[in-house]
Amino acid sequence: MKIVIIGSGNVAYHLSKAFCEKGIEISQIFARNPTSLQAIAEELNIPSSSTDLAEADLYIIAVSDDAVHKVSKLITNENALVAHTSGSLPKEILSGSFRKASFYPLQTFSKTKSLNYDEIPFFIEAENLADENLLQLLAEKISHNVMVSNYEKRKYIHLTAVFSCNFVNHLFARAKEISDSQDIPFHYFLPLIDETVKKIHTMEPKNAQTGPAVRNDQSILQRHEELIHDEEQLKIYKTINESIKKMYEL
Amino acid sequence: MKIVIIGSGNVAYHLSKAFCEKGIEISQIFARNPTSLQAIAEELNIPSSSTDLAEADLYIIAVSDDAVHKVSKLITNENALVAHTSGSLPKEILSGSFRKASFYPLQTFSKTKSLNYDEIPFFIEAENLADENLLQLLAEKISHNVMVSNYEKRKYIHLTAVFSCNFVNHLFARAKEISDSQDIPFHYFLPLIDETVKKIHTMEPKNAQTGPAVRNDQSILQRHEELIHDEEQLKIYKTINESIKKMYEL
Repeated sequence: MKIVIIGSGNVAYHLSKAFCEKGIEISQIFARNPTSLQAIAEELNIPSSSTDLAEADLYIIAVSDDAVHKVSKLITNENALVAHTSGSLPKEILSGSFRKASFYPLQTFSKTKSLNYDEIPFFIEAENLADENLLQLLAEKISHNVMVSNYEKRKYIHLTAVFSCNFVNHLFARAKEISDSQDIPFHYFLPLIDETVKKIHTMEPKNAQTGPAVRNDQSILQRHEELIHDEEQLKIYKTINESIKKMYEL
Repeated sequence: MKIVIIGSGNVAYHLSKAFCEKGIEISQIFARNPTSLQAIAEELNIPSSSTDLAEADLYIIAVSDDAVHKVSKLITNENALVAHTSGSLPKEILSGSFRKASFYPLQTFSKTKSLNYDEIPFFIEAENLADENLLQLLAEKISHNVMVSNYEKRKYIHLTAVFSCNFVNHLFARAKEISDSQDIPFHYFLPLIDETVKKIHTMEPKNAQTGPAVRNDQSILQRHEELIHDEEQLKIYKTINESIKKMYEL
């Protein structure tokens, strides 16, 4: 099976690297930007082009969300299987009479870091079972967390990631505002934060809950509200404590 | 200087262990519970008693918050310095005519795990500069994150920990509700969560923010709100997105 990867950003780089490490041959890496393309092609020793897209059985389009539609039009082979790597686009965004699919790795990629690909979850969607199986097998060569999931499910995957990553980061930002206001170095809290995350690798988050709200310690909750002078911090404080009390029926 | 540690719980154990590892002699470990006391005393080879409290220059009371006051009454030596290890109690909770202090390690201790004491922040408070210096030097033998901080400041330390640990864990619990509802294994999100936390070791959380709210992507925010059917999840979703928009003036 001939595989072509389209793109020269972080996802394209890491996917190509993961394939190479597992001995999966990539026929070509194709991208418009010759500089970043060249760097990847040379490092991984893959044929590359920024002008002539090679014939292939599988094209993986690893470009930014707003470029997927346009890039897919370059593929004229009607017998090909074409997959994009976006979490938030339906496979129908792909434009052409080829078979459409999604091959979505759930991870924030940054080019410099080396990643443990085994752990990166892949979410697969295709038009028929044969293509689904093929993409699943391919993903399983890289990762041991592979799951078939349609567009509807991918939306909830994205929502879960928003709660557990984007929102968590915002809490860190608000927490740092509080520690900054008292000249307490925020890095003092990193060991505790690391421990909080380490815990949920082995425990249900629901069973790992600590703090004044889950103890229903009204006097501390009251005192904390008096300490907070920022409106947004206070809204978060009240909303999350209410949510904790509801979850544990306090 | 003669040091006595009072308590046989996790904090008492880890403090004693950290002192021993750094060659700081403990004259006695004292606790009411002979079983757990014996285990610590034997492992660390420290003299122990559950009946006769030894004379010492420094007593460190590492017992649960509601026992600190009562336990402090056992100390009759007026020339001693007595410190408790609680983050949420003032040093005045200690009852006696000795010098009072607080020696607070910010960490969730669990007995079985081995901890990297170097990283655990210590917050110190005493009645006078000499005692403060003494406790600071002592803490610095164990950790490189030591800070003098009064009771007022400790309250904000606790509040910061609530935002960055207790609340973060609750977001994990709510995120898991969402992934569970779609039969998506929550452990698929752990690599992304780990990465989120790894990032703030080297970046300001405010600069590490990603996701639809900070991009002010109204169409995704709108679609997400339609996906959420739980009232508490929706309140959190709206509150944190509003807070993100306010922080970045969107």
